Amino acid sequence: MPRIVTFGEIMIRLQPCNHERFAQTNHLEFGFGGSAANVAVTLANYGIDTAYVTKIPTNTIGQCAVDSLRRYNVDTSLIVRGGNRMGICFSEKGFSWRDSFCIYDLAHSAIQEATTADFDWDNIFDGVDWFHFACLSPALSPNVGEICKEACLAARRKGAFISCDLNFRGMPWLRQQASETVLELCRYVNVCISNVEAANDVFGIKVEETHANDGRVNLESYKSVAYQMADRFGFEIVAITLQESHNTSEAALSALLYDVADDRYCFSPKYDFHIIDQLGSDDSFNGGLIYALLSGKSTQEAVKFAVANSVLKQSLE
Amino acid sequence: MPRIVTFGEIMIRLQPCNHERFAQTNHLEFGFGGSAANVAVTLANYGIDTAYVTKIPTNTIGQCAVDSLRRYNVDTSLIVRGGNRMGICFSEKGFSWRDSFCIYDLAHSAIQEATTADFDWDNIFDGVDWFHFACLSPALSPNVGEICKEACLAARRKGAFISCDLNFRGMPWLRQQASETVLELCRYVNVCISNVEAANDVFGIKVEETHANDGRVNLESYKSVAYQMADRFGFEIVAITLQESHNTSEAALSALLYDVADDRYCFSPKYDFHIIDQLGSDDSFNGGLIYALLSGKSTQEAVKFAVANSVLKQSLE
Amino acid sequence: MPRIVTFGEIMIRLQPCNHERFAQTNHLEFGFGGSAANVAVTLANYGIDTAYVTKIPTNTIGQCAVDSLRRYNVDTSLIVRGGNRMGICFSEKGFSWRDSFCIYDLAHSAIQEATTADFDWDNIFDGVDWFHFACLSPALSPNVGEICKEACLAARRKGAFISCDLNFRGMPWLRQQASETVLELCRYVNVCISNVEAANDVFGIKVEETHANDGRVNLESYKSVAYQMADRFGFEIVAITLQESHNTSEAALSALLYDVADDRYCFSPKYDFHIIDQLGSDDSFNGGLIYALLSGKSTQEAVKFAVANSVLKQSLE
Amino acid sequence: MPRIVTFGEIMIRLQPCNHERFAQTNHLEFGFGGSAANVAVTLANYGIDTAYVTKIPTNTIGQCAVDSLRRYNVDTSLIVRGGNRMGICFSEKGFSWRDSFCIYDLAHSAIQEATTADFDWDNIFDGVDWFHFACLSPALSPNVGEICKEACLAARRKGAFISCDLNFRGMPWLRQQASETVLELCRYVNVCISNVEAANDVFGIKVEETHANDGRVNLESYKSVAYQMADRFGFEIVAITLQESHNTSEAALSALLYDVADDRYCFSPKYDFHIIDQLGSDDSFNGGLIYALLSGKSTQEAVKFAVANSVLKQSLE
Amino acid sequence: MPRIVTFGEIMIRLQPCNHERFAQTNHLEFGFGGSAANVAVTLANYGIDTAYVTKIPTNTIGQCAVDSLRRYNVDTSLIVRGGNRMGICFSEKGFSWRDSFCIYDLAHSAIQEATTADFDWDNIFDGVDWFHFACLSPALSPNVGEICKEACLAARRKGAFISCDLNFRGMPWLRQQASETVLELCRYVNVCISNVEAANDVFGIKVEETHANDGRVNLESYKSVAYQMADRFGFEIVAITLQESHNTSEAALSALLYDVADDRYCFSPKYDFHIIDQLGSDDSFNGGLIYALLSGKSTQEAVKFAVANSVLKQSLE
Amino acid sequence: MPRIVTFGEIMIRLQPCNHERFAQTNHLEFGFGGSAANVAVTLANYGIDTAYVTKIPTNTIGQCAVDSLRRYNVDTSLIVRGGNRMGICFSEKGFSWRDSFCIYDLAHSAIQEATTADFDWDNIFDGVDWFHFACLSPALSPNVGEICKEACLAARRKGAFISCDLNFRGMPWLRQQASETVLELCRYVNVCISNVEAANDVFGIKVEETHANDGRVNLESYKSVAYQMADRFGFEIVAITLQESHNTSEAALSALLYDVADDRYCFSPKYDFHIIDQLGSDDSFNGGLIYALLSGKSTQEAVKFAVANSVLKQSLE
Repeated sequence: MPRIVTFGEIMIRLQPCNHERFAQTNHLEFGFGGSAANVAVTLANYGIDTAYVTKIPTNTIGQCAVDSLRRYNVDTSLIVRGGNRMGICFSEKGFSWRDSFCIYDLAHSAIQEATTADFDWDNIFDGVDWFHFACLSPALSPNVGEICKEACLAARRKGAFISCDLNFRGMPWLRQQASETVLELCRYVNVCISNVEAANDVFGIKVEETHANDGRVNLESYKSVAYQMADRFGFEIVAITLQESHNTSEAALSALLYDVADDRYCFSPKYDFHIIDQLGSDDSFNGGLIYALLSGKSTQEAVKFAVANSVLKQSLE
Repeated sequence: MPRIVTFGEIMIRLQPCNHERFAQTNHLEFGFGGSAANVAVTLANYGIDTAYVTKIPTNTIGQCAVDSLRRYNVDTSLIVRGGNRMGICFSEKGFSWRDSFCIYDLAHSAIQEATTADFDWDNIFDGVDWFHFACLSPALSPNVGEICKEACLAARRKGAFISCDLNFRGMPWLRQQASETVLELCRYVNVCISNVEAANDVFGIKVEETHANDGRVNLESYKSVAYQMADRFGFEIVAITLQESHNTSEAALSALLYDVADDRYCFSPKYDFHIIDQLGSDDSFNGGLIYALLSGKSTQEAVKFAVANSVLKQSLE
Repeated sequence: MPRIVTFGEIMIRLQPCNHERFAQTNHLEFGFGGSAANVAVTLANYGIDTAYVTKIPTNTIGQCAVDSLRRYNVDTSLIVRGGNRMGICFSEKGFSWRDSFCIYDLAHSAIQEATTADFDWDNIFDGVDWFHFACLSPALSPNVGEICKEACLAARRKGAFISCDLNFRGMPWLRQQASETVLELCRYVNVCISNVEAANDVFGIKVEETHANDGRVNLESYKSVAYQMADRFGFEIVAITLQESHNTSEAALSALLYDVADDRYCFSPKYDFHIIDQLGSDDSFNGGLIYALLSGKSTQEAVKFAVANSVLKQSLE
Repeated sequence: MPRIVTFGEIMIRLQPCNHERFAQTNHLEFGFGGSAANVAVTLANYGIDTAYVTKIPTNTIGQCAVDSLRRYNVDTSLIVRGGNRMGICFSEKGFSWRDSFCIYDLAHSAIQEATTADFDWDNIFDGVDWFHFACLSPALSPNVGEICKEACLAARRKGAFISCDLNFRGMPWLRQQASETVLELCRYVNVCISNVEAANDVFGIKVEETHANDGRVNLESYKSVAYQMADRFGFEIVAITLQESHNTSEAALSALLYDVADDRYCFSPKYDFHIIDQLGSDDSFNGGLIYALLSGKSTQEAVKFAVANSVLKQSLE
Repeated sequence: MPRIVTFGEIMIRLQPCNHERFAQTNHLEFGFGGSAANVAVTLANYGIDTAYVTKIPTNTIGQCAVDSLRRYNVDTSLIVRGGNRMGICFSEKGFSWRDSFCIYDLAHSAIQEATTADFDWDNIFDGVDWFHFACLSPALSPNVGEICKEACLAARRKGAFISCDLNFRGMPWLRQQASETVLELCRYVNVCISNVEAANDVFGIKVEETHANDGRVNLESYKSVAYQMADRFGFEIVAITLQESHNTSEAALSALLYDVADDRYCFSPKYDFHIIDQLGSDDSFNGGLIYALLSGKSTQEAVKFAVANSVLKQSLE
Repeated sequence: MPRIVTFGEIMIRLQPCNHERFAQTNHLEFGFGGSAANVAVTLANYGIDTAYVTKIPTNTIGQCAVDSLRRYNVDTSLIVRGGNRMGICFSEKGFSWRDSFCIYDLAHSAIQEATTADFDWDNIFDGVDWFHFACLSPALSPNVGEICKEACLAARRKGAFISCDLNFRGMPWLRQQASETVLELCRYVNVCISNVEAANDVFGIKVEETHANDGRVNLESYKSVAYQMADRFGFEIVAITLQESHNTSEAALSALLYDVADDRYCFSPKYDFHIIDQLGSDDSFNGGLIYALLSGKSTQEAVKFAVANSVLKQSLE
């Protein structure tokens, strides 16, 4: 069985119940999440041997975060314990014309104040086949950028395949300020998952008209973006997601996977769906894609599986 | 006022709140339901004098089941008390592309281990105008099949009209294994409520194309199914429901009623609707149909009333 | 900063959670609302200096009502305390084809048994720019009608602009019985907010066909209603809302604002939306309209802002 | 099996969860209660054929009240439906040194505005062995006093035994103002349940020192009160409860039963206990006493059973 | 680090919230528990490498049970998956004079219908230092008795220490019917945890007066019970717990540990405490005792630690 | 009416419901609290004109904090808005032998990163009679220490009386590290509220035996502590609280007030009580004491009132 390691920040997630707003409630749902942690849970759910690496404080709240991952069979034995606090995401679900939003309180979290000395990557990557991280964390903190770079180097040494999420959907403002760190990390990445907005903002890749005159999606423009990304950074696979939000409660999702070796562009079907919670939709795409590729599905099947996985995730509380 | 008796299994129903999954929650909604019990509640709500007959353990949980029926004015004085356990249905509501499902834990329930000695049907049917049962319970357990047969014979003796639900929607796998018991019971039934899938699986009635080339429903094929069923078993009324599930949250419902005496086929309008909970949709169709027929509505009005009743039920938590 | 006073009845609002019915639940949501109170909260949320005037008992429940307003920065210092009880609204939210409904228990509330001696309007209107009231309360009780009339006279003396909500959506039966009191109060009103049904029932204004043969809204008929109302009562601004309920969960809203001085008819865009809770949709239209007008938006912008505000409100729990 | 009828007011009961205060919460527990209704539920729980008589509005909320009684097997078929509203009790549970309290909103309830024409007592008392009512309702409203008097006369005619609760614990202020109506009703009562405070306030019965110098209860003084009450009104049984509240969460309960025919004074043991909810403690004493007497227990056993029943009731949510 | 294996039945636990009764509620707390599973969680919480062995169905509910253990770091990789259902415990918490109770629905559970072929004990006990089981499960089902016997034999072969809980507190009626199976298993046990009632009922060990004339506990009688048990079965350690329930909410706990090798009787201090939930009190005693002995505490310290652990457990929801 | 200003840190308070632990729950109670904010709410509840001063971020969560204070009639118009985050207190309530605890995540909160430039104290203290602050915040952060010193100087200039809470009960470890900042601030304080532990740790005041040989409290030792504090810092009033925790659920509270001008030592009665939540017990003592002194009660009455207020507070959720 293949073994995967994912790395990134895990946050406390606090959220009003149902469709309530913070201003109306005195009870919050209490959970934990983060891009790489969500990917780890997805993969463990599919039966993959998955370890999640991060730094979490030793207090009761930190222990709850570890328990929440262990419950879903994620290997938590490599998590470094220490630091002062966990980052927090206060998220409010919108409805219909009312937008969802998140207030992030991430500064000074254990992982953002961690140093490269905290992680022994050569040991971590023993027997590991795949390494996944998201670019939000390295973009947020130089420390995490450094740690990530060391991780990529070690992964390469150990022969692990590397995938990276460049969507930046949770914090779109990071697209501008993140480019240097991110560009350097891209050099080590085999599978890059992104969207058109990030390709433009982070890499300066100009997109041709994404919609034709008749309002239909211009497939060629997506192919061009994927090609340019692969061409510039040497990615082996580029996946471009296209989520169209009709409103806060309804959306459609499709994706393009560009398989460089075969020079093949695979478009998934487009799914229309109702949304319970959009948070983590990219992570479930990533997890689905990695699982599909690891388990030997074709690239065409893989991109469909990844989209379906994300659609199902958005129908969960 | 007419008096009705319904017979069948009542289960404990355990269900996560809202759209949560079992894997996410540590609180469950705690209620009771079952095809014939639901029909009884519907009829009592419409003011019909309705008794529900089953066997329920004498413990606190069994008493809660009785209380839950009494609350809605169902006559519970004929329920036999005894046996070891109640069956349980763990049900999880889906959303959008995510399916709903039920896990049944029914074996060894009080009613499935009951014997014909438990029920004095001649006494039960004193002054009763209508007897209703669903075929799930007799299909699940030979004991219940025997009890049901005795009930039908007594009902005939006492001059009660007999209706039966043959949809098997909750447990479609029973359609194959249930046929013998069911076929025998059908001989006593006046009003049979079914759908095309059950007609095919249980009775081997072949259905012509249900949809024409243009995607519209082929009404003639439904009429043919109803006709064959009536022809074969001597039913006086056959009702065929047609629920089209667009996805877990949206559906359309219509129905056909075939009135044999008048050789008249009555189609209801088709209602498009959003779903909160689909469980029990057939039971509310049945209850609505029986109420409509008992209260003197025409067969055309009755099938519309039954469909509307089912649509409203699916908008309830 | 402008200062507004709103006047009317505030009720205890008791409502089952989510989509439950009263018959299913033993827990209720406990809040407070009322047309003029809701308008006050909307305006205070937008930063307007807003006082709400009513009469509320001195007991713990009354204090909770005051606290609930103060929380949203409404000036509650002018509320008269006394009387025996608060009115109550038991409201049940429908879904899809199932209707929402309210059971009102308002008789003998503190405000309905208040007298003109309870309110020193000249003092209340010191430095006040705008006075708003809804016609439900004066239509329900002669006492409130008298108090309202004194308020209008004082507002005029003090130079405050007067707006009034004539929708009667919550209690449509009042449209017939309310006319005399209401007609008299209209003489003092500058901005009148209504709909076609109320215009017909209260004022006897005949409406031409509101929909053309092709099913599209006949804009001229709305313009005609607005014109007749302004012509008859001397309103400076008439706003006509048009909420089309597709079903309990989905609707569309648009509105017409007739600016008499400019003889200008401004139509808002039409918004299609999903509904969480429709209660208070008129109040949020009113609050949005008043805020927009007070903050110097054009009448065209104002009617759009008011509609958007109402649409957003209906997406809240 | 004996048949009992109880009569009185049933209220909506609204209460914050756990130990929250109204000022802290936006969710309330929603239930129904009232002295005579609670006695009916107690008796039905013990298997006695019990009907509850009152007047309840025809709306959804009124139906919920009826359902809540039917659930516990109380015969609700004699309840008169009509009137405008139900009375409401807002109750807040205290803890330790913090007191519990109720805010009553009872005026103009259906039963308080009922007339003697609403009840056909001779019909109601057909085959009835025992009639129970509490004096709160007749003391609150002259209408109810008149109805109660007619009920007592009919009960006498039909040979039913009559019991009455004169504790007035929920509304002690009524003790003063209630005397005339109450005194007249007492002439028909066989079993009177009261306490020392009510005996003093309502009947002017002077109590000797209830506690001796050493702090222990002076049993003779209780015997004297019971004797005087029986002597003056011709009661056959007088029960005097003695609840000592150490604080809101802890209390002790004992009682004296004076059996006039045997001239026997029976003291129950004293139970020390923790309290979850004190509301209804008298009603459970009454229900327990009536059940014990009806089922042939000795007066000594009966008073112990009644006290134990009340103690258990106070350990329920 | 030592490694422990525990074996037994895990049940679904369904319980009303707070102090509600089943008859009052439509929401239940949903969890999992069982004697040996609880011991495993306690040990894993203290950092011991602990595996729990049982048989659990493959459905969603069974997966939730596995997740709930994994969350607390119990090794679940040895759990056999299969069978038809999980046993269920409906438990209601009492208060003050109101008793707690459980309704068990255990028959035909996966583990009770398991066979010896399901478990490869020699493999399971590789590297294991301690094996713990409770006698409830083997007493309930001959299958489990057989499985347990094979486990004990394998544990002996592999050199694992064996402890066993003989309290039978949850199902006292089993003490009578369980003796044969249990007596045979006792031959393999090193550490036996029991109480005086079980010693009497299961082993027929007569207890001298446990309380002296002055009401104080007679320590000699407890020492005698422990001595007789050790003498008869060759236990190395016997622990006797003594929980005195003042009422449902208050109790005291102490224990005696008899260390046979040193012929030493160690009494713990007695703790008085308030109870939130008594279920599992023996399991936490067992877990605490095993942990203390494994981590090198003296027998005197160990019995105190075990009692304190049980007292703390009973203060948890 | 007197006007009070209180100053300090307000935190988000997140707490499991009832007696659950963080490890068990996925729902938290969401509120706000802080020593000086709690004092402000107490005083506003008693009808005092009270403003609370602090710095709070401009985001939605910060707005909720402001709303929560405004709801209880605290003047929030002087609160400075800005900064990056609010401090958080994760608090878990214990029970019986299980301790309560708090995990603080306060670093980098808006108020701790505020500067003296944020507050215009001369303006804030216009017309203010009393200034209260707690020493936790200045002890935690040099910035707050500086701000507090400027506040005290301005209060003196404006003639406001100054009170200060030196209990440090929430964070006892601060007693050692806080001394310098605190000692300087003490020079400006008129009323100092403390306890024996803080007097020892912060000021090095040696306490004689607080308990006599017979276990009773040695009143003279408390008088000595109060005298030494007043003597050293020139306080006009010193209040010393004495909370005896029997266990997490039960405690006793009394207090001593030393009135320097009259050289009078006033001891309150001692109250035994059950605890729902101990957090904020000192704040309610402070608020009660300030209110009592402001409203003209004698010092003997004031200390009793303050103790009773704290006891009642601890009986609230």
